[in-house]
Amino acid sequence: MIFASDNWAGAAEPIVAALAEQARNGGPAYGGDALSKAVEARFCEIFEREVAVYFVGTGTAANALAIANYCRPGSIVFGHTQAHINVDEANGLEFLGGGVKVVGLDGEGGKLTPSTLLDGLAAFPERGFHHGQPVAVSLSQANELGQAYSPAEVAAVTEVAKDKGLAVHMDGARFAGAVAGLGVSPADVTWKAGVDVLSFGGTKNGCLAAEAVVFFNPAQARDFGFARQRIGHGFSKAWFIAAQFARYLEGDTWLALAGHANARARVLADAVRSGREARLALEPSANEVLAILTEGLDARLKAAGAIYYPWSPAGMPADALPGPGEVLVRFVTSFQTSEDEVARFAALVSGSTTP
Amino acid sequence: MIFASDNWAGAAEPIVAALAEQARNGGPAYGGDALSKAVEARFCEIFEREVAVYFVGTGTAANALAIANYCRPGSIVFGHTQAHINVDEANGLEFLGGGVKVVGLDGEGGKLTPSTLLDGLAAFPERGFHHGQPVAVSLSQANELGQAYSPAEVAAVTEVAKDKGLAVHMDGARFAGAVAGLGVSPADVTWKAGVDVLSFGGTKNGCLAAEAVVFFNPAQARDFGFARQRIGHGFSKAWFIAAQFARYLEGDTWLALAGHANARARVLADAVRSGREARLALEPSANEVLAILTEGLDARLKAAGAIYYPWSPAGMPADALPGPGEVLVRFVTSFQTSEDEVARFAALVSGSTTP
Amino acid sequence: MIFASDNWAGAAEPIVAALAEQARNGGPAYGGDALSKAVEARFCEIFEREVAVYFVGTGTAANALAIANYCRPGSIVFGHTQAHINVDEANGLEFLGGGVKVVGLDGEGGKLTPSTLLDGLAAFPERGFHHGQPVAVSLSQANELGQAYSPAEVAAVTEVAKDKGLAVHMDGARFAGAVAGLGVSPADVTWKAGVDVLSFGGTKNGCLAAEAVVFFNPAQARDFGFARQRIGHGFSKAWFIAAQFARYLEGDTWLALAGHANARARVLADAVRSGREARLALEPSANEVLAILTEGLDARLKAAGAIYYPWSPAGMPADALPGPGEVLVRFVTSFQTSEDEVARFAALVSGSTTP
Amino acid sequence: MIFASDNWAGAAEPIVAALAEQARNGGPAYGGDALSKAVEARFCEIFEREVAVYFVGTGTAANALAIANYCRPGSIVFGHTQAHINVDEANGLEFLGGGVKVVGLDGEGGKLTPSTLLDGLAAFPERGFHHGQPVAVSLSQANELGQAYSPAEVAAVTEVAKDKGLAVHMDGARFAGAVAGLGVSPADVTWKAGVDVLSFGGTKNGCLAAEAVVFFNPAQARDFGFARQRIGHGFSKAWFIAAQFARYLEGDTWLALAGHANARARVLADAVRSGREARLALEPSANEVLAILTEGLDARLKAAGAIYYPWSPAGMPADALPGPGEVLVRFVTSFQTSEDEVARFAALVSGSTTP
Repeated sequence: MIFASDNWAGAAEPIVAALAEQARNGGPAYGGDALSKAVEARFCEIFEREVAVYFVGTGTAANALAIANYCRPGSIVFGHTQAHINVDEANGLEFLGGGVKVVGLDGEGGKLTPSTLLDGLAAFPERGFHHGQPVAVSLSQANELGQAYSPAEVAAVTEVAKDKGLAVHMDGARFAGAVAGLGVSPADVTWKAGVDVLSFGGTKNGCLAAEAVVFFNPAQARDFGFARQRIGHGFSKAWFIAAQFARYLEGDTWLALAGHANARARVLADAVRSGREARLALEPSANEVLAILTEGLDARLKAAGAIYYPWSPAGMPADALPGPGEVLVRFVTSFQTSEDEVARFAALVSGSTTP
Repeated sequence: MIFASDNWAGAAEPIVAALAEQARNGGPAYGGDALSKAVEARFCEIFEREVAVYFVGTGTAANALAIANYCRPGSIVFGHTQAHINVDEANGLEFLGGGVKVVGLDGEGGKLTPSTLLDGLAAFPERGFHHGQPVAVSLSQANELGQAYSPAEVAAVTEVAKDKGLAVHMDGARFAGAVAGLGVSPADVTWKAGVDVLSFGGTKNGCLAAEAVVFFNPAQARDFGFARQRIGHGFSKAWFIAAQFARYLEGDTWLALAGHANARARVLADAVRSGREARLALEPSANEVLAILTEGLDARLKAAGAIYYPWSPAGMPADALPGPGEVLVRFVTSFQTSEDEVARFAALVSGSTTP
Repeated sequence: MIFASDNWAGAAEPIVAALAEQARNGGPAYGGDALSKAVEARFCEIFEREVAVYFVGTGTAANALAIANYCRPGSIVFGHTQAHINVDEANGLEFLGGGVKVVGLDGEGGKLTPSTLLDGLAAFPERGFHHGQPVAVSLSQANELGQAYSPAEVAAVTEVAKDKGLAVHMDGARFAGAVAGLGVSPADVTWKAGVDVLSFGGTKNGCLAAEAVVFFNPAQARDFGFARQRIGHGFSKAWFIAAQFARYLEGDTWLALAGHANARARVLADAVRSGREARLALEPSANEVLAILTEGLDARLKAAGAIYYPWSPAGMPADALPGPGEVLVRFVTSFQTSEDEVARFAALVSGSTTP
Repeated sequence: MIFASDNWAGAAEPIVAALAEQARNGGPAYGGDALSKAVEARFCEIFEREVAVYFVGTGTAANALAIANYCRPGSIVFGHTQAHINVDEANGLEFLGGGVKVVGLDGEGGKLTPSTLLDGLAAFPERGFHHGQPVAVSLSQANELGQAYSPAEVAAVTEVAKDKGLAVHMDGARFAGAVAGLGVSPADVTWKAGVDVLSFGGTKNGCLAAEAVVFFNPAQARDFGFARQRIGHGFSKAWFIAAQFARYLEGDTWLALAGHANARARVLADAVRSGREARLALEPSANEVLAILTEGLDARLKAAGAIYYPWSPAGMPADALPGPGEVLVRFVTSFQTSEDEVARFAALVSGSTTP
């Protein structure tokens, strides 16, 4: 019962096999191989337009590099208070962007809205040299609380951003989960809704280490190759990432893997919804379930071997906060989460089983 | 006949197999897995002392992070003019070290000596706030010209360095090749000779992407975890690097792979030595052969499909520089270089075959 | 009636005269002059201990350099939400500290307390590589809301800081005003209360451009000369700053100038306190008066030529927030504020005069 | 006999008086004062076009900020080996430009030429992500060896630069001396010859601390206000710099001051030229005299109280290098150098006086 994070999972068998096959062959270094080029073409297909694709090793690198691409002296970047860029990347963006201030904004369910962004912008008058200059906003899709933005929700935020000259970044470490959960096209929820650059994640959804920065306007990536190289995310044997993506993006593999994880999350959510000592804090859009448990149930789940983390209530609706004797927790499923795991969990939550 | 670089090779079969096996299982994220800990223990064994080991994705990251660990405001770092940190890392160290000046020093065969280091230091008086402060020196082992430092040569340079308060870094992207070529113990050529921190490379010698920063004094690594995380080299599925290293370092696998590459390089060197239109620029210590070819032979080799690069003459002895109608080139072998490849090459160089 | 800021004032006559006198003479560059050394000695006297003193050109440079001196990769620095480092320095600390995250904390009257600092620290577990590492806390003395910390209040915060390994910085752009207002010794309110480094300001209190970074433990300043030089705050004609400080610190000149400003602020405060359309938001400790005005009075003051700014209510006690039809404003006095200015203001506020 | 540097001098009397006068008055902070605006207008007049002017405190700040304005990830900046940016600014550019590599080029007399720049560029192929990207070249006018570029010499270098997409910076810490020495118009030797941005120095030529960054295409300065503010070179009492410049640039004051220094340098040069134990290394263009002395004369000059520094021979013509028993030295005059000083020097060098 590992619900700690989707990055505790192994890698999906077809991806492992594809990587192993390619590993024997090698190829020209630093992305000169045919597979890397084929993957870029596949990304263009998926997003229904020309895109520029840069592989990197981790989601942290993808996010920080992607946003730093738009940074200038005194940069202000907006994101949700709970955003990965704000709390989990050891000041990666602050550093790579040359001294960025990440301004955390509130928003229910971890989602930014036009009004929260406008509120954030209000503190930064144009050419207010003392305060810094807003350059970008970042949306997590799906976000750290398991919520996905609909295309209309993305567009509403990007409209404000464009009006104020901000670049729009989407943290898609869980992009597959969001797309699968929303049932929308990748294009509709990104560039067609105003997104400039996407961190497209594979690692949390069945790859070993495969992340890509996707620029929807390739000209904006002019300096990206240099920015990536100088922090060592230009891999010599780039085909080891290409091989993972090639298989991951073959047909609908990536969406099928995410769909599996999402389905397992729905089972967890149903169990929570029906439990007497548990309730849902948010209806999940993808593979993260935010739940409120009694301390008693929390202890019993852990005693039974369930692994998961408590979670910060920032950005939760007022009616979904833990009360006395309760804890807010997050359960994350993955492509590898088994029917047995969720069944055991459900039994524990429903109370029919005592560990 | 691929002699362009050792990073054009695929990965060694046992390493591929080990990675594929582990990939199915996964484990706790961010290095919490058992395999990561086992690999750290194996490093301690190999180096005959307690070391702190940090995995990263590339050699560029390993070098820049390792040296930046010792940087302070106004840092001056010394390396050979041809050093990878000086010419191939897109200002990685300059950036990660917060505005470092890398001072390239000359030295025959790409090797630094005590006197070249002392010459370099002369421009930087203590507390000379205008000029910056020397903080580190970096040695490449084996270096970009295929030469390895003996333990005594390392010690001679580090003695000067220690006297001046410099940290000593060793760029061991080709460490296995150097150790195999020198026939020395890993400890003798590193910390016992005064090295503080080592970039230990696996990628060029049979891994897919496996590099480690090894601190011989673990206390010096206090901030390294943060520095690594903020540029996204803290991998969530760190076991994908651990699995490669576990197999790479099992028994003498790493040295055997390097020994293979070195042996192939010796065949190339012999061919060059005996060719009428070719001569050795430097006697190889590991898997890189610097040679001077006539333009005619150069053209014939390329026509026959050999892939390799011309090379800069900086740091070559005066009697080993190309003359009119000649070119300096570098041939690199790998664990994967076949007997057939070197035989075809030898035949072409010896003139018995016309392409 | 200029109450916009104390940096709109000219310079005090004796300081102007001393600077003009020294300006004719010049001297050895970069602080080698005798006056610079004399000023350092005077600082030691004032603080009753050996200190290391570094002149810089502005308070922003003083703050950012002083705190950056303690920064390491992934640094977290705490300050009040309204602190100058957090809102007015264009990411100076974020940049100079190599990607710092400044965490703004609340606290009534713009003052940090042990409990707010502890709350802030709670999000950063030791060796939590994802989150960054707390390295310092900064207190403004007097702060942006006109409040000064008593020695005991400083000591209470620094006790928590020391316990957690944080360096303690004091932003003393208005240090003279705080010392004059509190009636304490400079030593008591700084190093004796646990402060490590002080930005000692002269500019806002009668100098033209004279700021100093004062280290109470000189050994901590090891790299400061380099850090200052590389951003161009090592002035060649350093005696132009020394000359200002020499006169500023002669006898109690600095405290007398601040005392003047504070006294004028008290007149403003009295006027506000007694006005029917105005009330004090905070009792002033030095030369800043936070007041709540009716929109009508605000308009009349401006029409009469008073210059001042509206102010953010962050960190104000609940009973001191503007209501409907009211505005929160800040009035700042200086050594140059005249009796006539404050009298005109008082008359306007008291309602006896219509503009 | 102070010939150590022009920044050992005091300030010119009219400038001191103007500063003192303005100091009493003050004005709106951060450049909102009328004098600052008047100075900007005067710069437009002097350069015969619209320019954007930003005051900063030091030449180091001016240079590093001006060039960093054009930097992008992996930046390569070219300058002469002896350039101030390369040896005297404690990695200021490397830091402010976010990890810049300053590539020092040779060139006789400290001057770059089209061919040396082309040689430097050859190592950096377009989109060569490993090597970094050239972004700018910097010319010192007059340079560290006392040489000035004619408009044609500037234009020759900038033609190469423009062709390769490089911005062109001019380090004009001694711009007045160069203009006075060359007898050209400020416009001719800057933007009309292809210069994009100029560090315009006042400090070495009679001011206390007055430097300006002048953009000839104001649109290129979009982010400069933020970049300046975050390192604390946006002065609150900016009128203290404006007052110096206002007087410095009144009529031909600046050129007259420089003319005085240049004339004194010519006297020194004549003395050297005629001395039996001395010879000119380079014919001076402005106020720096590079000379070769016998060790005996060197000792006698110092014994007589002359203050000056030995100098690096990098970039000296082959026939102007010190031989055995000789030293290369630099004498610098200033607006304040007296007739008496140079006469005493001349007497010592000509041998008619023994100290």
